[in-house]
Amino acid sequence: IDKPAIIPTENRIATIMKYGFPGLDNIRSFDDYVLSYDRKTRTAHWVFEHLTSEHVKHNNEVDRAKCDFKPDESIHPFFRADNTDYKKSGYDRGHLAAAGNHKKSQNHVQQTFYLSNISPQVGVGFNRDSWNRLESYVRKLTKVYQNVYVCTGPLYLPRKETDGKLYVKYEVIGTNNVAVPTHFFKVVVCETKDGKLEMESYVMPNEKISDDTPLESFRVPPESVERAAGLLFFDKINRKMLNKVNGKKV
Amino acid sequence: IDKPAIIPTENRIATIMKYGFPGLDNIRSFDDYVLSYDRKTRTAHWVFEHLTSEHVKHNNEVDRAKCDFKPDESIHPFFRADNTDYKKSGYDRGHLAAAGNHKKSQNHVQQTFYLSNISPQVGVGFNRDSWNRLESYVRKLTKVYQNVYVCTGPLYLPRKETDGKLYVKYEVIGTNNVAVPTHFFKVVVCETKDGKLEMESYVMPNEKISDDTPLESFRVPPESVERAAGLLFFDKINRKMLNKVNGKKV
Ligand SMILES: [Mg+2]
Ligand SMILES: [Mg+2]
Repeated sequence: IDKPAIIPTENRIATIMKYGFPGLDNIRSFDDYVLSYDRKTRTAHWVFEHLTSEHVKHNNEVDRAKCDFKPDESIHPFFRADNTDYKKSGYDRGHLAAAGNHKKSQNHVQQTFYLSNISPQVGVGFNRDSWNRLESYVRKLTKVYQNVYVCTGPLYLPRKETDGKLYVKYEVIGTNNVAVPTHFFKVVVCETKDGKLEMESYVMPNEKISDDTPLESFRVPPESVERAAGLLFFDKINRKMLNKVNGKKV
Repeated sequence: IDKPAIIPTENRIATIMKYGFPGLDNIRSFDDYVLSYDRKTRTAHWVFEHLTSEHVKHNNEVDRAKCDFKPDESIHPFFRADNTDYKKSGYDRGHLAAAGNHKKSQNHVQQTFYLSNISPQVGVGFNRDSWNRLESYVRKLTKVYQNVYVCTGPLYLPRKETDGKLYVKYEVIGTNNVAVPTHFFKVVVCETKDGKLEMESYVMPNEKISDDTPLESFRVPPESVERAAGLLFFDKINRKMLNKVNGKKV
C-alpha cells in the first residue's frame, strides 16, 4: 500500500515544552523555539529549545550570514527593543536561543535574530568566547543524548555593597531602556534513548571570562537559578527521578 | 410575584477589571481586589481595585487592628515573601491595595494583609504620610464619582550615574530578597454617573516626602508609567475618549 504523501508534522511546540513551562508571562511560539518576553526589561524572561543531532548538524541551505537582527513586531512598541538601542552601547546583540541550534531551515535561524531573543552581552570574553563555549558544549550533548532540552535566560543578581546591604543593579541601554543582565543561565535536560534524564544548570556572569575557566565551574544547583529567576524549570519532571544533576548521581 | 430569595451577586472580578488587565502574569483574584504577582521581586506587578462610596465608608464591623500580615500561601515557597524579610529591614510593610479601601467585610480588609499585596516602603514621610495622603485622596474621589478604578504598583526606575550611563538599582531585603521599589505608581480612572471617564496618573519616589508637597506635583503622563512598568493600563478604554487626563481636557 502507498504511504501517505503528507506526513503529519509533529507538534513542535509540544515537543519543545514537553517538560513544562518555566513561567507563563507573554509567551511567543516561534517555529523552532519558545520565548517568554519581559516587557519591563525589553528582553526575554527565558527561551526554550529542543535539540537533537538533526537540528544542529551542518546544513548547506542555511546561511547565518544572511540573517538580520530585527525588532520583534509582535511586541507592543512601548516595550520593544530596537537595533538603535544597541548602537554604541558597547554590548553585543547576544542570542539567547543560539543561532547554531536552529539549522533545519533558513527561516528557523532567522527567527533567532528577533531582538526579543537578544540580550545585551559583553562581546569579547563572553558572547564571543566563554558563553559561546557553553553553547557549543550544549550542542555537542546531542551526540550522546537522544533529546536535549535547554532553557536560557537573563538574571539580575543582587550584590552586597559596602553598606552591608544587598542591591540589584544593572545598566539599561538605548531609548528603550533595554536591561543589561548581570548574569545568564542555562538549564539543560538530557534524555537518553531509554528515557533516563540528567540535568545540568549553569550561571555565567555577563563579563569577560578567561577562556581557560572550565565550564563546570559555572555549574550551580538548579534551585538557586529558579529562586533568582522567579521561574520553575522542567516542573513536570520529579527531580528525584533525575539520574544525575550537574554530573552527580542524586 | 415573589422576588428570588437569593439575589445573584455581581461578578466582582469582572467589575474590578472592567477596563482591561494591565498584564497577565500570575494573576490572583481576591474577594475585593485583583493582583498580578512578580515572582522575581517577591512583590506584586500591580493590584487593581474598584472603589465606590459603599466600599470605603466607615463600617463598625470591620477592625483593621485585628488584621495580621500573612505570607500568601498561594505563592510557591521559592518566591514568597515572609514577615521575617521585613524585620529589621528599616522598611514598613506597605499596602498596595490600601486596607482602607476594603471596608465591606473583615475578610476583605484581612485579604489586603497578604504579603503579596505588600511592598517595602519607607515609613516616615512616605507610607505613613504622603503615600497615605494619595490613598486618602483616591478614596475621596468616590464622593464625586460613581466608580473609581485604581491600579497600583511598584516601579524600578533607572537613574543616570556619574559615568553618564543609566542604571536600575534597588535594594533587596531578607532571605527571600524582597525588592525595595524605587517608586510607586497609581493610575486611576473615575467614572461619572453619565459614563464620562477621567484618568489620573501618579508616580511617587519611595522616600521621605515633605507633607506640604502638593499631590499634583506627582502627576505624570500615563504612558510614561506604562513604559516603565511594562504594563498597559485600562487598555479597553480608547484614550482619546477620556474626558480629562491629569485634570486637563484631552
Ligand atoms: Mg552569542
Ligand atoms: Mg500604607
